[in-house]
Amino acid sequence: MTSATSKRVLEHPARNEIRLEDVLHALADPMRLTVVRELAAGEGELACSDIDLPVTKSTSTHHFRVLRESGVIQQIYRGTAKMNGLRREDLEALFPGLLDSVLAAAAAESARDRAAPAAR
Amino acid sequence: MTSATSKRVLEHPARNEIRLEDVLHALADPMRLTVVRELAAGEGELACSDIDLPVTKSTSTHHFRVLRESGVIQQIYRGTAKMNGLRREDLEALFPGLLDSVLAAAAAESARDRAAPAAR
Repeated sequence: MTSATSKRVLEHPARNEIRLEDVLHALADPMRLTVVRELAAGEGELACSDIDLPVTKSTSTHHFRVLRESGVIQQIYRGTAKMNGLRREDLEALFPGLLDSVLAAAAAESARDRAAPAAR
Repeated sequence: MTSATSKRVLEHPARNEIRLEDVLHALADPMRLTVVRELAAGEGELACSDIDLPVTKSTSTHHFRVLRESGVIQQIYRGTAKMNGLRREDLEALFPGLLDSVLAAAAAESARDRAAPAAR
């Protein structure tokens, strides 16, 4: 039981291993930004299946992995569900204000797209 | 003379064509972040040759192009020099506070690397 459990512990960078360039790369994708926005809007953790992305399952898994490996989210198995949470505290300690400004920018861009979809 | 000049006008996205994901992608590279930090620290424009990157000339040119095409910098030929400037006003209008928080994060990461280079 123990080894089966530990095999399902996913690797995460420690706080001091999180790199700005990896965080920005992780956020530089519309699907991944959608995930981060939904996690930021919700309270606590969300299962991967709670976040509806218009991509295949394997692409979705890839996006979650990029977010985890960059240090943006944590992923923990709870039973059969992989639960996701933002690493707000770690990101805020390393890069104060960065996550909030990216979230605000994403909201501004969404509002702009809704206001003038033809301008794209 | 006129056509020779106009051929050397480089293409830039208009303000409303600038996309958050492109901006974040442009900033998600240590060399490009170095360029942006130097432009932010300086006053006004800098020539590409004023910014010393530890990469080949063609790689450097590529990085400047990514920054220009994403809308992060403007590039203008003045005589034989290609001059670069941050598009602060456009970025601030679209994504208030984003550039400053990325610059602060880059400064924080540099300070962290200097304090504990072995931790990487």
